[in-house]
Amino acid sequence: LDELTVGQRFASGAYRVDAKQIIAHAREFNPQPFHLDDAAARETIFGGLAASGMHTAAITIRLLVEGGPRLAGGIIASGCEIRWPRPTRPGDVLQVKSEVLEIEPSRSRADRGFATLRSDTYNQHGEIVQTFKIKLLAPRQRSSSSAERQTPAE
Amino acid sequence: LDELTVGQRFASGAYRVDAKQIIAHAREFNPQPFHLDDAAARETIFGGLAASGMHTAAITIRLLVEGGPRLAGGIIASGCEIRWPRPTRPGDVLQVKSEVLEIEPSRSRADRGFATLRSDTYNQHGEIVQTFKIKLLAPRQRSSSSAERQTPAE
Repeated sequence: LDELTVGQRFASGAYRVDAKQIIAHAREFNPQPFHLDDAAARETIFGGLAASGMHTAAITIRLLVEGGPRLAGGIIASGCEIRWPRPTRPGDVLQVKSEVLEIEPSRSRADRGFATLRSDTYNQHGEIVQTFKIKLLAPRQRSSSSAERQTPAE
Repeated sequence: LDELTVGQRFASGAYRVDAKQIIAHAREFNPQPFHLDDAAARETIFGGLAASGMHTAAITIRLLVEGGPRLAGGIIASGCEIRWPRPTRPGDVLQVKSEVLEIEPSRSRADRGFATLRSDTYNQHGEIVQTFKIKLLAPRQRSSSSAERQTPAE
Protein backbone atom coordinates (compact mmCIF):
# COMPACT_ATOMS: atom_id res chain seq x y z
CA LEU A 1 0.00 0.00 0.00
CA ASP A 2 2.82 2.34 0.93
CA GLU A 3 4.18 2.21 -2.61
CA LEU A 4 0.95 3.22 -4.31
CA THR A 5 -0.02 6.84 -4.92
CA VAL A 6 -3.31 8.36 -5.99
CA GLY A 7 -3.24 9.09 -9.71
CA GLN A 8 -0.70 6.37 -10.45
CA ARG A 9 -1.46 4.63 -13.76
CA PHE A 10 -0.91 1.15 -15.14
CA ALA A 11 -1.36 -0.26 -18.64
CA SER A 12 -1.70 -4.01 -19.06
CA GLY A 13 -0.62 -6.29 -21.87
CA ALA A 14 -3.09 -7.53 -24.49
CA TYR A 15 -5.42 -10.55 -24.45
CA ARG A 16 -7.08 -11.92 -27.58
CA VAL A 17 -10.50 -13.50 -27.22
CA ASP A 18 -11.85 -15.96 -29.80
CA ALA A 19 -15.28 -17.52 -30.38
CA LYS A 20 -14.16 -20.85 -28.90
CA GLN A 21 -13.26 -19.19 -25.58
CA ILE A 22 -16.49 -17.17 -25.51
CA ILE A 23 -18.57 -20.31 -26.09
CA ALA A 24 -16.59 -22.41 -23.58
CA HIS A 25 -17.06 -19.78 -20.84
CA ALA A 26 -20.77 -19.48 -21.66
CA ARG A 27 -21.33 -23.26 -21.62
CA GLU A 28 -19.96 -23.36 -18.10
CA PHE A 29 -21.33 -20.10 -16.67
CA ASN A 30 -23.84 -18.35 -18.91
CA PRO A 31 -25.60 -20.77 -21.29
CA GLN A 32 -27.77 -18.31 -23.24
CA PRO A 33 -28.11 -18.23 -27.06
CA PHE A 34 -26.28 -14.91 -27.58
CA HIS A 35 -23.18 -16.27 -25.78
CA LEU A 36 -23.25 -19.76 -27.36
CA ASP A 37 -24.02 -19.50 -31.04
CA ASP A 38 -23.43 -16.76 -33.59
CA ALA A 39 -26.50 -17.57 -35.72
CA ALA A 40 -28.82 -17.59 -32.69
CA ALA A 41 -27.16 -14.41 -31.39
CA ARG A 42 -28.03 -12.57 -34.61
CA GLU A 43 -31.71 -12.83 -33.65
CA THR A 44 -31.07 -11.12 -30.29
CA ILE A 45 -30.28 -7.63 -29.05
CA PHE A 46 -26.55 -8.46 -29.39
CA GLY A 47 -26.80 -8.99 -33.16
CA GLY A 48 -24.01 -11.59 -33.07
CA LEU A 49 -21.93 -13.70 -30.70
CA ALA A 50 -20.95 -11.74 -27.57
CA ALA A 51 -18.90 -12.70 -24.52
CA SER A 52 -20.64 -12.98 -21.17
CA GLY A 53 -19.94 -9.88 -19.08
CA MET A 54 -18.32 -12.03 -16.43
CA HIS A 55 -15.96 -13.40 -19.09
CA THR A 56 -14.83 -9.84 -19.87
CA ALA A 57 -14.50 -9.21 -16.12
CA ALA A 58 -12.43 -12.37 -15.61
CA ILE A 59 -10.10 -11.42 -18.49
CA THR A 60 -9.76 -7.97 -16.90
CA ILE A 61 -8.63 -9.60 -13.65
CA ARG A 62 -6.10 -11.68 -15.59
CA LEU A 63 -4.70 -8.53 -17.22
CA LEU A 64 -4.58 -6.77 -13.83
CA VAL A 65 -2.78 -9.69 -12.19
CA GLU A 66 -0.17 -9.63 -14.97
CA GLY A 67 0.06 -5.91 -15.63
CA GLY A 68 -1.52 -3.96 -12.79
CA PRO A 69 -0.11 -2.68 -9.51
CA ARG A 70 2.42 -4.97 -7.84
CA LEU A 71 1.13 -5.59 -4.32
CA ALA A 72 3.02 -7.77 -1.83
CA GLY A 73 -0.07 -9.84 -1.03
CA GLY A 74 -1.25 -10.11 -4.64
CA ILE A 75 -4.40 -8.73 -6.26
CA ILE A 76 -7.17 -9.41 -3.71
CA ALA A 77 -10.50 -7.63 -4.20
CA SER A 78 -13.07 -7.02 -1.50
CA GLY A 79 -15.57 -5.74 -4.04
CA CYS A 80 -16.13 -3.98 -7.34
CA GLU A 81 -18.50 -2.06 -9.57
CA ILE A 82 -18.78 -3.01 -13.23
CA ARG A 83 -20.49 -1.51 -16.27
CA TRP A 84 -20.55 -3.12 -19.69
CA PRO A 85 -21.23 -0.36 -22.26
CA ARG A 86 -20.67 -2.83 -25.16
CA PRO A 87 -19.89 -6.52 -25.43
CA THR A 88 -16.60 -8.25 -26.13
CA ARG A 89 -16.73 -9.92 -29.56
CA PRO A 90 -14.85 -12.84 -31.11
CA GLY A 91 -11.42 -11.65 -32.28
CA ASP A 92 -11.32 -8.71 -29.87
CA VAL A 93 -7.96 -7.86 -28.33
CA LEU A 94 -8.47 -6.45 -24.84
CA GLN A 95 -6.23 -4.17 -22.80
CA VAL A 96 -6.78 -2.70 -19.34
CA LYS A 97 -5.77 0.81 -18.34
CA SER A 98 -5.90 1.54 -14.61
CA GLU A 99 -5.59 4.50 -12.31
CA VAL A 100 -5.35 4.56 -8.51
CA LEU A 101 -8.39 6.55 -7.31
CA GLU A 102 -8.10 6.28 -3.55
CA ILE A 103 -5.90 4.86 -0.82
CA GLU A 104 -7.26 4.27 2.67
CA PRO A 105 -5.67 2.58 5.69
CA SER A 106 -7.87 -0.02 7.37
CA ARG A 107 -9.69 1.36 10.40
CA SER A 108 -9.34 -1.92 12.33
CA ARG A 109 -5.97 -3.31 11.18
CA ALA A 110 -2.71 -1.36 11.14
CA ASP A 111 -1.08 -3.87 8.79
CA ARG A 112 -3.46 -3.42 5.88
CA GLY A 113 -5.46 -0.96 3.86
CA PHE A 114 -7.45 -0.60 0.69
CA ALA A 115 -6.63 0.81 -2.72
CA THR A 116 -9.44 1.63 -5.13
CA LEU A 117 -8.57 1.35 -8.81
CA ARG A 118 -10.48 2.41 -11.84
CA SER A 119 -9.66 -0.09 -14.56
CA ASP A 120 -11.14 0.38 -18.00
CA THR A 121 -11.02 -2.46 -20.50
CA TYR A 122 -10.58 -1.44 -24.14
CA ASN A 123 -10.95 -3.40 -27.36
CA GLN A 124 -8.62 -3.01 -30.35
CA HIS A 125 -10.77 -0.14 -31.69
CA GLY A 126 -10.16 1.92 -28.55
CA GLU A 127 -13.76 1.36 -27.41
CA ILE A 128 -14.49 0.64 -23.76
CA VAL A 129 -16.08 -2.79 -23.26
CA GLN A 130 -16.01 -2.55 -19.47
CA THR A 131 -15.57 0.10 -16.80
CA PHE A 132 -14.49 -1.32 -13.49
CA LYS A 133 -13.96 0.12 -10.03
CA ILE A 134 -12.20 -2.41 -7.86
CA LYS A 135 -11.34 -2.18 -4.17
CA LEU A 136 -8.14 -4.04 -3.42
CA LEU A 137 -6.87 -5.23 -0.08
CA ALA A 138 -3.24 -4.25 0.33
CA PRO A 139 -0.71 -5.08 3.06
CA ARG A 140 0.82 -2.08 4.79
CA GLN A 141 4.20 -1.91 6.40
CA ARG A 142 4.08 -0.78 9.99
CA SER A 143 7.53 0.76 10.23
CA SER A 144 10.33 1.78 7.95
CA SER A 145 12.56 -0.91 9.50
CA SER A 146 10.37 -3.53 7.86
CA ALA A 147 10.51 -1.83 4.48
CA GLU A 148 12.84 -4.50 3.14
CA ARG A 149 10.73 -7.37 4.42
CA GLN A 150 9.54 -9.63 1.67
CA THR A 151 6.87 -12.27 1.72
CA PRO A 152 8.12 -15.57 0.30
CA ALA A 153 7.37 -15.74 -3.41
CA GLU A 154 5.48 -19.00 -3.52
CA LEU B 1 -40.40 -6.33 -17.53
CA ASP B 2 -44.16 -6.09 -17.21
CA GLU B 3 -44.23 -9.39 -15.34
CA LEU B 4 -41.72 -8.39 -12.63
CA THR B 5 -42.73 -6.63 -9.44
CA VAL B 6 -40.61 -4.93 -6.80
CA GLY B 7 -40.11 -7.28 -3.86
CA GLN B 8 -40.51 -10.41 -5.96
CA ARG B 9 -38.11 -13.14 -4.84
CA PHE B 10 -36.32 -16.03 -6.55
CA ALA B 11 -34.30 -18.90 -5.13
CA SER B 12 -31.91 -20.75 -7.44
CA GLY B 13 -30.85 -24.35 -7.49
CA ALA B 14 -27.52 -25.47 -6.00
CA TYR B 15 -24.03 -25.58 -7.57
CA ARG B 16 -21.15 -27.54 -6.05
CA VAL B 17 -17.63 -26.17 -6.51
CA ASP B 18 -14.58 -28.40 -6.22
CA ALA B 19 -10.83 -27.70 -6.05
CA LYS B 20 -10.33 -28.78 -9.67
CA GLN B 21 -12.81 -26.15 -10.92
CA ILE B 22 -11.30 -23.45 -8.69
CA ILE B 23 -7.80 -24.19 -10.00
CA ALA B 24 -8.94 -24.43 -13.66
CA HIS B 25 -10.66 -21.03 -13.45
CA ALA B 26 -7.63 -19.48 -11.74
CA ARG B 27 -5.16 -20.89 -14.31
CA GLU B 28 -7.13 -19.17 -17.04
CA PHE B 29 -8.14 -15.91 -15.32
CA ASN B 30 -6.48 -15.37 -11.95
CA PRO B 31 -3.18 -17.22 -11.64
CA GLN B 32 -2.24 -16.31 -8.06
CA PRO B 33 -1.01 -18.80 -5.40
CA PHE B 34 -4.13 -18.64 -3.17
CA HIS B 35 -6.35 -19.63 -6.12
CA LEU B 36 -4.02 -22.31 -7.54
CA ASP B 37 -2.59 -24.41 -4.74
CA ASP B 38 -3.86 -25.27 -1.29
CA ALA B 39 -0.40 -25.52 0.32
CA ALA B 40 0.69 -22.14 -1.07
CA ALA B 41 -2.69 -20.64 -0.10
CA ARG B 42 -2.13 -21.61 3.55
CA GLU B 43 0.70 -19.07 3.72
CA THR B 44 -1.59 -16.26 2.55
CA ILE B 45 -4.41 -14.18 3.99
CA PHE B 46 -6.88 -16.80 2.66
CA GLY B 47 -5.42 -19.60 4.83
CA GLY B 48 -6.27 -22.21 2.17
CA LEU B 49 -7.44 -22.61 -1.41
CA ALA B 50 -10.10 -20.03 -2.32
CA ALA B 51 -12.02 -19.40 -5.54
CA SER B 52 -11.34 -16.22 -7.48
CA GLY B 53 -14.10 -13.69 -6.82
CA MET B 54 -14.93 -13.66 -10.52
CA HIS B 55 -15.40 -17.43 -10.37
CA THR B 56 -18.01 -16.96 -7.62
CA ALA B 57 -19.60 -14.19 -9.72
CA ALA B 58 -19.70 -16.39 -12.83
CA ILE B 59 -21.35 -19.25 -10.87
CA THR B 60 -23.87 -16.72 -9.57
CA ILE B 61 -24.76 -15.77 -13.15
CA ARG B 62 -25.17 -19.46 -14.00
CA LEU B 63 -27.56 -19.91 -11.07
CA LEU B 64 -29.48 -16.76 -12.07
CA VAL B 65 -29.79 -17.90 -15.69
CA GLU B 66 -31.19 -21.23 -14.49
CA GLY B 67 -33.20 -20.12 -11.47
CA GLY B 68 -33.72 -16.38 -11.53
CA PRO B 69 -36.39 -14.21 -13.14
CA ARG B 70 -37.63 -15.43 -16.53
CA LEU B 71 -37.16 -12.55 -18.93
CA ALA B 72 -38.19 -12.81 -22.60
CA GLY B 73 -34.80 -11.52 -23.81
CA GLY B 74 -32.76 -13.55 -21.34
CA ILE B 75 -30.54 -12.39 -18.48
CA ILE B 76 -28.60 -9.43 -19.91
CA ALA B 77 -26.76 -7.17 -17.45
CA SER B 78 -25.72 -3.59 -18.12
CA GLY B 79 -23.73 -3.44 -14.88
CA CYS B 80 -23.36 -4.69 -11.34
CA GLU B 81 -21.90 -4.12 -7.89
CA ILE B 82 -20.22 -7.00 -6.10
CA ARG B 83 -18.86 -7.55 -2.59
CA TRP B 84 -17.07 -10.68 -1.47
CA PRO B 85 -17.31 -10.89 2.34
CA ARG B 86 -15.73 -14.37 2.36
CA PRO B 87 -14.29 -16.67 -0.29
CA THR B 88 -15.84 -19.73 -1.92
CA ARG B 89 -13.95 -22.86 -0.82
CA PRO B 90 -13.50 -26.31 -2.39
CA GLY B 91 -16.58 -28.42 -1.66
CA ASP B 92 -18.87 -25.41 -1.18
CA VAL B 93 -22.42 -25.74 -2.46
CA LEU B 94 -23.66 -22.34 -3.62
CA GLN B 95 -27.21 -21.05 -3.92
CA VAL B 96 -28.46 -17.61 -5.00
CA LYS B 97 -31.40 -15.82 -3.42
CA SER B 98 -32.65 -12.78 -5.31
CA GLU B 99 -35.07 -9.97 -4.81
CA VAL B 100 -36.28 -7.37 -7.32
CA LEU B 101 -35.20 -3.98 -5.91
CA GLU B 102 -36.27 -1.58 -8.64
CA ILE B 103 -37.99 -1.49 -12.00
CA GLU B 104 -37.51 1.43 -14.37
CA PRO B 105 -38.67 1.94 -17.95
CA SER B 106 -35.97 3.12 -20.33
CA ARG B 107 -36.05 6.86 -20.89
CA SER B 108 -35.09 6.54 -24.55
CA ARG B 109 -36.73 3.27 -25.66
CA ALA B 110 -40.39 2.39 -25.09
CA ASP B 111 -39.73 -1.30 -25.75
CA ARG B 112 -37.29 -1.88 -22.90
CA GLY B 113 -36.48 -1.10 -19.32
CA PHE B 114 -34.23 -2.10 -16.46
CA ALA B 115 -34.75 -4.31 -13.44
CA THR B 116 -32.29 -4.12 -10.54
CA LEU B 117 -31.90 -7.34 -8.57
CA ARG B 118 -30.16 -7.98 -5.33
CA SER B 119 -28.77 -11.48 -5.54
CA ASP B 120 -26.93 -12.91 -2.55
CA THR B 121 -24.87 -16.05 -2.96
CA TYR B 122 -24.82 -18.41 0.04
CA ASN B 123 -22.64 -21.39 0.84
CA GLN B 124 -23.96 -24.58 2.46
CA HIS B 125 -23.41 -23.07 5.95
CA GLY B 126 -25.81 -20.24 5.18
CA GLU B 127 -22.91 -17.75 4.99
CA ILE B 128 -22.89 -15.09 2.28
CA VAL B 129 -19.92 -15.46 -0.07
CA GLN B 130 -21.08 -12.70 -2.40
CA THR B 131 -23.54 -9.83 -2.39
CA PHE B 132 -24.51 -8.71 -5.85
CA LYS B 133 -26.60 -5.88 -7.23
CA ILE B 134 -27.22 -6.43 -10.91
CA LYS B 135 -28.99 -4.18 -13.38
CA LEU B 136 -30.77 -6.23 -16.03
CA LEU B 137 -32.02 -5.09 -19.39
CA ALA B 138 -35.58 -6.30 -19.91
CA PRO B 139 -37.89 -6.10 -22.93
CA ARG B 140 -41.17 -4.34 -22.34
CA GLN B 141 -44.38 -4.98 -24.17
CA ARG B 142 -45.88 -1.88 -25.71
CA SER B 143 -49.48 -2.99 -25.71
CA SER B 144 -51.58 -5.68 -24.10
CA SER B 145 -52.27 -7.16 -27.54
CA SER B 146 -48.67 -8.31 -27.72
CA ALA B 147 -48.79 -9.91 -24.28
CA GLU B 148 -48.85 -13.40 -25.79
CA ARG B 149 -45.93 -12.74 -28.13
CA GLN B 150 -43.08 -15.14 -27.56
CA THR B 151 -39.50 -14.99 -28.78
CA PRO B 152 -38.38 -18.22 -30.44
CA ALA B 153 -36.65 -20.46 -27.90
CA GLU B 154 -33.34 -21.04 -29.67
